Amino acid sequence: MKVRRSDRLIDMTRYLLERPHQLVSLTFFSKRYESAKSSISEDLTILKRTFKARGTGLLETVPGAAGGARLIPYMGQDEADALVADMVTELSQADRYLPGGFVYMSDLLGQPTTLRQIGRLMATEYVDTPVDAVLTIATKGIPIAQSVAEFLNVPFAIVRHDSQISEGSTVSVNFVSESRQRIEKMALAKRSLAAGSRVLLVDDFMKGGGTIGGMRSLLAEFDAVLAGVSVLAEGAFEGNRVVPDYTSLLKVSATDNQIHVAPGNYTQKIYTPERVNLISE
Amino acid sequence: MKVRRSDRLIDMTRYLLERPHQLVSLTFFSKRYESAKSSISEDLTILKRTFKARGTGLLETVPGAAGGARLIPYMGQDEADALVADMVTELSQADRYLPGGFVYMSDLLGQPTTLRQIGRLMATEYVDTPVDAVLTIATKGIPIAQSVAEFLNVPFAIVRHDSQISEGSTVSVNFVSESRQRIEKMALAKRSLAAGSRVLLVDDFMKGGGTIGGMRSLLAEFDAVLAGVSVLAEGAFEGNRVVPDYTSLLKVSATDNQIHVAPGNYTQKIYTPERVNLISE
Repeated sequence: MKVRRSDRLIDMTRYLLERPHQLVSLTFFSKRYESAKSSISEDLTILKRTFKARGTGLLETVPGAAGGARLIPYMGQDEADALVADMVTELSQADRYLPGGFVYMSDLLGQPTTLRQIGRLMATEYVDTPVDAVLTIATKGIPIAQSVAEFLNVPFAIVRHDSQISEGSTVSVNFVSESRQRIEKMALAKRSLAAGSRVLLVDDFMKGGGTIGGMRSLLAEFDAVLAGVSVLAEGAFEGNRVVPDYTSLLKVSATDNQIHVAPGNYTQKIYTPERVNLISE
Repeated sequence: MKVRRSDRLIDMTRYLLERPHQLVSLTFFSKRYESAKSSISEDLTILKRTFKARGTGLLETVPGAAGGARLIPYMGQDEADALVADMVTELSQADRYLPGGFVYMSDLLGQPTTLRQIGRLMATEYVDTPVDAVLTIATKGIPIAQSVAEFLNVPFAIVRHDSQISEGSTVSVNFVSESRQRIEKMALAKRSLAAGSRVLLVDDFMKGGGTIGGMRSLLAEFDAVLAGVSVLAEGAFEGNRVVPDYTSLLKVSATDNQIHVAPGNYTQKIYTPERVNLISE
C-alpha cells in the first residue's frame, strides 16, 4: 500500500535521526513506502529545509539513481552557547565544591538530555572530518563517549585502569597521572580498535593531559590515528600540557573553597568560519 | 510565520523522540509553529497513527486545553525477537570464547545502534510502570543503563568498586562476588539517588546475582525502591539466585571451549498479554 506523504515524512525523520552519517538510498525509501523515487526526492527536499530551519542537522543529498540522503547532525552556535551557559550556572553552585579542589559533576553525566546535547555539540566539530571510532577511559568518560559516538554513528571503546578477564588479550601502556602524582597503567582490549582507525579521544576532565597522553600512546600501539581530543571540562594547569591540541566545553577550577566555571575553547575550535559556512549551507 | 503541516510533522517527530515519556502541551506546539491548536491536534492524530504503524511507540494524547502528547517508545515482539536472534548469532562465534569460560561481548556494548535497540527493548517492560532512575555498576553496565535511561527519560547513576575523590561522600555496602569467590565492596555517591525513587537495576551480565544483590542493598540504604532488574545476559547458575526476579535478553554459557547462547526470559517478562494489548492499542 502506498504511504501518504505525511506518514512518509514522519517515518523518514525517525529513520534518518537513528542513522546519522549513513547514506540511505532513494531505492530503500521508495520500496519502504511503495512510492515513486520522484516523490521521495520531494520528501527529502522538505526534510532538508526543516532540518536546517530547526538546527537539527545537514541533510546531504546524493543525486542520481544510486543516490540517497545522509543526515549529519550538528548544533548551531546559539544552541551551544545556551547549553554551555546552563552548565556554567549549574556547576557554579557552591554545594558542588568537594575537598581537594574537585567539582561534583557526576549527576550531569547521568542526565540523558544533557548527555545528548553534549554529544551533539562535540560531534559538530566532526561534521567535515572523518572519525572511525571514539575512545574513552573508565569510568566518567563513558557516558560522553557513548553520546558522541551515537551522533557520529561509530563504535566506541573503553580503556580501563585494570585489565579484566572478560576482555581477552589487552595492550597496556604506562602514563603519568598528575592528579595522583604517580605512574599508572591503562589497558585496552586487543580487539577494540582496528588498525588505521581515525580515533576521537573523549574524557570528562583534563588537567595536564596525562591520561589523554596515555590514550594517545595506546593509539600508536594499535596503529590507529588521532582524529582529535574532546573533553567536557579542562582544569587549571600551569605549564605545557602533554596534549596541546584539544577542545573543551568548560573551564573548571576550584580554589579556596570556591568553584570557578567558565566556557572552554569550543567556540574557536568548533565554530570556525569554514564550519559555520558548511552548517548554514 | 505559520509553519506548514509537513514541516510541523517533521519537527514534532524529532521533538517528541528526544523527550520520551514527557508530556508536551498543545499550547507549546501551537506557539512553536504559530498554528491553531486544532491543527496541532490533527498533526498528533497523524503522528499517533504512523508511530503505531511503524512500531516507534505509543503516542498518548491528553485531551482538553491543558492537554498535549507524550511519546512512549517501545519495541514490538517481532523486532525484539529479530534483535535477540542477531545477538545470539553474533555472540555464538567461536572466536569469542575466552579462557575461564567467559564470552567476549565488549564490542557489542560499544555499538551505538545495538545499544539503542537494547535500551528500547528493556524500556518496553516499563511502558506501564513508573521508573524514576536507572542504577548500574561500573564498567560494562554503563552503556546499557545509559541507553535504557534515554528511552525512559530518567537519570542514571553508577555504582563503583572504588570510591572516587571526585564523587564526594559515598555510601558503601559489601557483597559476595561469585565470579571472584570473595566479599567485595561497592559504593554510590550520596547525591546520586533521591529517597523514594523507584529504581531499575541494569547490568551486562548476571550469574548468581551477587552484584545485583549488592545494588539492591544499596537501594535500601538510600530509602529507594526496587522497580525491576534487567540484564543483557544471564549466565548458567546452579542453585537459588540472590535476586530471583529479573529480565534477561540472553542466556550465555561457555564450557569446554564452546559458547552456548540462547534467548533469555524476555518474552515472558516483557511481552505479557496486558502489555501487548497496551502496545497495540
